[in-house]
Amino acid sequence: VTTARLETFSDGVFAIAITLLVLEIQVPEEPTLHALGDLWSSYLAYGVSFLLIGLVWANHHTMFDHIERGDRALLFLNTLLLADVAFIPFATGVMARTLRISEHEQLGTAFYGAVIAIGGIPFNLIWWWARRERLLGSSISDVEARRLAVRYWLGPAIYAAAALLALLAPYAAIAVYAALIVFYWVEPIRRTAAPRPTP
Amino acid sequence: VTTARLETFSDGVFAIAITLLVLEIQVPEEPTLHALGDLWSSYLAYGVSFLLIGLVWANHHTMFDHIERGDRALLFLNTLLLADVAFIPFATGVMARTLRISEHEQLGTAFYGAVIAIGGIPFNLIWWWARRERLLGSSISDVEARRLAVRYWLGPAIYAAAALLALLAPYAAIAVYAALIVFYWVEPIRRTAAPRPTP
Amino acid sequence: VTTARLETFSDGVFAIAITLLVLEIQVPEEPTLHALGDLWSSYLAYGVSFLLIGLVWANHHTMFDHIERGDRALLFLNTLLLADVAFIPFATGVMARTLRISEHEQLGTAFYGAVIAIGGIPFNLIWWWARRERLLGSSISDVEARRLAVRYWLGPAIYAAAALLALLAPYAAIAVYAALIVFYWVEPIRRTAAPRPTP
Amino acid sequence: VTTARLETFSDGVFAIAITLLVLEIQVPEEPTLHALGDLWSSYLAYGVSFLLIGLVWANHHTMFDHIERGDRALLFLNTLLLADVAFIPFATGVMARTLRISEHEQLGTAFYGAVIAIGGIPFNLIWWWARRERLLGSSISDVEARRLAVRYWLGPAIYAAAALLALLAPYAAIAVYAALIVFYWVEPIRRTAAPRPTP
Repeated sequence: VTTARLETFSDGVFAIAITLLVLEIQVPEEPTLHALGDLWSSYLAYGVSFLLIGLVWANHHTMFDHIERGDRALLFLNTLLLADVAFIPFATGVMARTLRISEHEQLGTAFYGAVIAIGGIPFNLIWWWARRERLLGSSISDVEARRLAVRYWLGPAIYAAAALLALLAPYAAIAVYAALIVFYWVEPIRRTAAPRPTP
Repeated sequence: VTTARLETFSDGVFAIAITLLVLEIQVPEEPTLHALGDLWSSYLAYGVSFLLIGLVWANHHTMFDHIERGDRALLFLNTLLLADVAFIPFATGVMARTLRISEHEQLGTAFYGAVIAIGGIPFNLIWWWARRERLLGSSISDVEARRLAVRYWLGPAIYAAAALLALLAPYAAIAVYAALIVFYWVEPIRRTAAPRPTP
Repeated sequence: VTTARLETFSDGVFAIAITLLVLEIQVPEEPTLHALGDLWSSYLAYGVSFLLIGLVWANHHTMFDHIERGDRALLFLNTLLLADVAFIPFATGVMARTLRISEHEQLGTAFYGAVIAIGGIPFNLIWWWARRERLLGSSISDVEARRLAVRYWLGPAIYAAAALLALLAPYAAIAVYAALIVFYWVEPIRRTAAPRPTP
Repeated sequence: VTTARLETFSDGVFAIAITLLVLEIQVPEEPTLHALGDLWSSYLAYGVSFLLIGLVWANHHTMFDHIERGDRALLFLNTLLLADVAFIPFATGVMARTLRISEHEQLGTAFYGAVIAIGGIPFNLIWWWARRERLLGSSISDVEARRLAVRYWLGPAIYAAAALLALLAPYAAIAVYAALIVFYWVEPIRRTAAPRPTP
């Protein structure tokens, strides 16, 4: 089995989940400047989650560039990953709600971080299974594949730590969430930008 | 007519239906730990339905790997199947609601099982029609196609039985629903895993 | 410009609009058998609209099999068509609501029929423009293209008449809507089924 | 990296955002002619936003016809653009709401214009980056690419001006929004229609 249709299906779920985020922001009954400003936590959560899902999509993209064949177990693990991604709009809504009412922010932000960290598990299992079952193509060496595996576990580990931090300092945790997303977006840019071909 | 655009369209509906499941879970007004825990039935229903739609998608995938040509009747039967799949978020919401308020669980879980079982009818009609009209490619023999047909009818038959069981013991029925989904996900893994190529 | 990406985009909108239909059906607070039965008008409207959008998709498919090149005006007309298709979930909700409360059914069903009839206008303009600008491929002759044009105008004309009928007899109009959809689904099946290749 | 999967993903988000617009229009409890007519501002906003997102999609299409290779930074900028596009249904709902209750129309229409103008920034950054990093293919010359850059900045500049106008005269601003969209749809039609090949 090639992975083409799996990728198309996953792209669909990513695209829908990322676009559904906006449905968590409700139009105020009376849209005054104050009412629109009051939704700051929703805008913040929208922005963070949008960049996050976009990032997971880009990483999924990169991972499946190396995976050449799929099997039933890979499909299953991928479905678990998508179940977590599609759940993010709900977690986003919960976090935004707690920030807005200024109550239970610890819980709301920890819940959000936990959902992200848990999503890292099937993501890593996909990679582990693809290596174990020799589903990778020749575009990546064994050494590089192992190095990526370490790298891939790092993300959920830091998110789990940040989710614990959220129980003490929710706003610091949000800062960590956002910083991580920006870092993971920007860092490969810097790496690939370095050896830019001379014109 | 090739089946390429039919598959793309179906993939779209599968991807959207699976992602819309999350909209059935409402962010609580006051997201306390208790309020989030109170949504357990929604999480359960979300998980079961997500794996179910993912499974139907994977099976649809396999079925259409064998179907080489499409005709108008196939399109029509496929639309009936999609109408059932797209209805699953509603059935999921109904089941989760009855479990949450601890009332009418018999009805809620039977309704859910019935929606799944009914979806098996167009699924099987597609296969029956493809065989009858010789729309299959050479990737499958007549004997295998007949064997698959028997296998494909088994699913809705068991689901119909489980839906009847739900009228007596809703939680047992849910356990059957979940067990069936896991079984159908895992069983082909074990079969294909057995003759794994020696390195 | 080829029409590939236009078709993909259109397929996306069709798939989403058809799947969003389910969001118009709300899970009852207390899902009793009576409450679920009370939603009969929503189920009816869901079924009719699902088959309708599926039909428009199939016809769009057929039409674009003949259109080889696209231009900016074709994109624009196609966007108008999609704006009508994406509006159908709302019209479906309005019709279902009036049937349910047993009030304003004339208006609700006429509104629904009008939305469908209006959608026929951009559909026909696409075909008219493609013929005028010679965007058609060699898969269809001028005579056949003109014959199809007549055929394509028939649909919205009958729907407009049925929408007028709805102002007098809403249930008769719904019967006409449903009958038309089934007819347009089934009729090409019978035509293509006739010259079935002998085995 | 080719831009194929980026385009597919973007097309998905465009298609979903454009179709979600309809969810901002709520079915009235009692759908009388008056109640349906009362939603005029929602219909207007729906129409304007539908044509707008369709237009951005078409322009995105054209832009990526010239971009041959993608890099991580391009993905990031594209994600920012999509975050704005996916936000349009909310901005549409806000504008429609203020028009409907005949209060805060200045704010509602300025907010809408600002969201559109802001979306122009990542759109232009994509083009700027593609030129700077020589990601363009040979289908466009440097001179034309620069000319397009000027042209691309014009849109958000006018929208920003119209958003300011909205603070004084909201209905005039809406007229400008709509006029611009129609102009940008129609203008390339006239240009490409001029040198129509003689039969």
